[in-house]
Amino acid sequence: MTAQHVAASLLALRARTPLVHSITNLVVTNSTANALLALGASPAMVEGEEEVVEFAALADALVINLGTMNARRASAMALATAAARQAGTPWVLDPVAVGVIQYRSEVAVGLLAHKPRVIRGNASEIIAFTRLFGAPLSGAPLSGARLSGARLSGAGDAGGQASRGVDSRAASDDAREAAGALARATGSAVVVSGATDYATDGISMVAIDNGHPMMPLVTGLGCTATAIIGACLAVVADPLAAAVHGMVLIGLAGELAGARAPGPGTLQVALLDALHALDGPTIEARARLRIVP
Amino acid sequence: MTAQHVAASLLALRARTPLVHSITNLVVTNSTANALLALGASPAMVEGEEEVVEFAALADALVINLGTMNARRASAMALATAAARQAGTPWVLDPVAVGVIQYRSEVAVGLLAHKPRVIRGNASEIIAFTRLFGAPLSGAPLSGARLSGARLSGAGDAGGQASRGVDSRAASDDAREAAGALARATGSAVVVSGATDYATDGISMVAIDNGHPMMPLVTGLGCTATAIIGACLAVVADPLAAAVHGMVLIGLAGELAGARAPGPGTLQVALLDALHALDGPTIEARARLRIVP
Amino acid sequence: MTAQHVAASLLALRARTPLVHSITNLVVTNSTANALLALGASPAMVEGEEEVVEFAALADALVINLGTMNARRASAMALATAAARQAGTPWVLDPVAVGVIQYRSEVAVGLLAHKPRVIRGNASEIIAFTRLFGAPLSGAPLSGARLSGARLSGAGDAGGQASRGVDSRAASDDAREAAGALARATGSAVVVSGATDYATDGISMVAIDNGHPMMPLVTGLGCTATAIIGACLAVVADPLAAAVHGMVLIGLAGELAGARAPGPGTLQVALLDALHALDGPTIEARARLRIVP
Repeated sequence: MTAQHVAASLLALRARTPLVHSITNLVVTNSTANALLALGASPAMVEGEEEVVEFAALADALVINLGTMNARRASAMALATAAARQAGTPWVLDPVAVGVIQYRSEVAVGLLAHKPRVIRGNASEIIAFTRLFGAPLSGAPLSGARLSGARLSGAGDAGGQASRGVDSRAASDDAREAAGALARATGSAVVVSGATDYATDGISMVAIDNGHPMMPLVTGLGCTATAIIGACLAVVADPLAAAVHGMVLIGLAGELAGARAPGPGTLQVALLDALHALDGPTIEARARLRIVP
Repeated sequence: MTAQHVAASLLALRARTPLVHSITNLVVTNSTANALLALGASPAMVEGEEEVVEFAALADALVINLGTMNARRASAMALATAAARQAGTPWVLDPVAVGVIQYRSEVAVGLLAHKPRVIRGNASEIIAFTRLFGAPLSGAPLSGARLSGARLSGAGDAGGQASRGVDSRAASDDAREAAGALARATGSAVVVSGATDYATDGISMVAIDNGHPMMPLVTGLGCTATAIIGACLAVVADPLAAAVHGMVLIGLAGELAGARAPGPGTLQVALLDALHALDGPTIEARARLRIVP
Repeated sequence: MTAQHVAASLLALRARTPLVHSITNLVVTNSTANALLALGASPAMVEGEEEVVEFAALADALVINLGTMNARRASAMALATAAARQAGTPWVLDPVAVGVIQYRSEVAVGLLAHKPRVIRGNASEIIAFTRLFGAPLSGAPLSGARLSGARLSGAGDAGGQASRGVDSRAASDDAREAAGALARATGSAVVVSGATDYATDGISMVAIDNGHPMMPLVTGLGCTATAIIGACLAVVADPLAAAVHGMVLIGLAGELAGARAPGPGTLQVALLDALHALDGPTIEARARLRIVP
């Protein structure tokens, strides 16, 4: 788990240009597709219930993001993740605002039955998700009564997909324990993003210190991080490694972009340029990842 | 109603980072969320019928924008505005292309039953909306026959959400009388945007002269203005003041961005940087608002 | 079919500011609207089944793009194209990922019954579409069994809307024959975009050499090209001429933008500035179009 491994993954990704199927929220479709293209992957936003089963089996990886949820989208996600699991397509889950809205919490918990390789959220989301999943459930949606405690307490932490949900009020440090518990309970690698990002498979934990303080002022960079982890899952077998590599790539691109951006508008644009320009020497010189004892 | 008040509202907004719930059109989800983040608010695009009732009650303000309308979205808007009214969450209505398409006109009129604090549109939209609402209606949707006159006449003025609807063919000056009448009939503050923006509560009228002539060439800046008014509603009790403050903030940011933008692509990006950089001294030096006798 | 004709069309377009009705995919709503505005047209993204019939008849041109397909959107497209045909509104079809997903292939073939003036796709899409339509069908959707061969063979070529579907693995040169056959079979002008773009009405073929190698790394520029062809259809009676003019305008803007862009993020922004700045002298000096013998 070194900078050299990240650089090698980026080379592999650009050689393969994996087809990354995303069912994501309405806010970030354009920015997610552009980030995947800039990095070297091949994005496809296919989300109709009529199309996702066929497409998830064709894709090299699947990204599921719970922003802007509704019943039709939830159904497409259930179909796509089931098809992905059956076809062996690795998938990553971004449980946006889980714990804040009851319906979304139920969808998030339900999708775990199809075994995401990685789950990525901010501190509030990971803490809320761990609490929800900590209940003795069998994959069936929780009842409203059982969810309400977690939901209401979660509401004070994270209020939405694009800001309080990203600019999490809980610090990522505080969610490390929850991340480990969630990883052990689900079998997924779990990432908590924040000023320092943490990734764990329930046994090892890796910290990534790349990033820029202005990143939370651009909508959907957490969603972009999840999509990049998805692209890495297509070329890196180990979920924890894919998660770490993805977080280094987005964090480093954000750091480079932030250094020359006068504000968040420019940062969003410069981040795409930076993803496109990323190369092995830059990664080896500037990646900041470390094993947490 | 001075520049000092606008500066104080911006400070208050950044201190509180209000959670602004938006149900907006598919064209501007990303740009709206980014504008709210850049300014200092916390956007959340939650639009599923399954989620909006719960979320509208959690939010500090609600923004309803009628672009890209369909029955599912109309239902979510009806649910959300009813929940907002019950919870005391202030909300703002952007009646995109009202008067052009019959279905949309009916939705717009129907939503007035839930009492928006502010309505913002361009001259064509405000004139059309005033005509529609000027009929002796009781909150029930108008019949097709009663709407068609206004719709067809409106169709010559404003043809869509993103351009003729924004780059209104009627001048904002011509809609001042309609704005006053609509404000008195609905109890909402009403904003007509254009080269000069006008805001009124039916008694007083304020003109805002900030802005840049290239702004109509960027899609959805009218929608962004409405969203920023929504954010102001969370920290300013008086609807007319919130409307004026919001229009000064977007107009001034557009003016500063336009001064350094070679074209509309750069303007869209620079506007986010400018919203992020806005501060009290800049507002006090450059805001151009005046009471209209 | 000269640079002077392209320059004249741009002048005509800016004089008329045609209302371009788009039903497009969720990824490119914002970038498409901005491109049309920057060029001088008036975009309107109206896609609800409740609204499209009325609006397609008001519009000067209609753009149909099959990305992010579902049954509701397919229904809106069928309604809108039927209304456009009846009202004489010219329309253009972008059959994103046709041949890759069976549902989408069926929708694409079904829409041909309403006679698009232009069809634009990349090489893989045009080859797949020609194969699908080459079957002796009567406008009714093909059965699954009849489609599956084309779909599966297509799947190796083009994998999605935003990348493999744009960054087509087949070269545009290889699709010239298919484009001619599709044009003759449908009566539409057909464009194959790629490093060199080809446009044909089944008799004449025009090649356009403008463009920039970084354009496939920005999501949805193919969709933008289609939308610009739509705008040209509102002011140019001949479908082949409208198709050629549109491809020159987007290719030239991309070429000018690419020359000063360090990466794809900046390219997306600079392209809008370039569309806004395009003028007759630049077109006459730099357009590269030629009749293919």
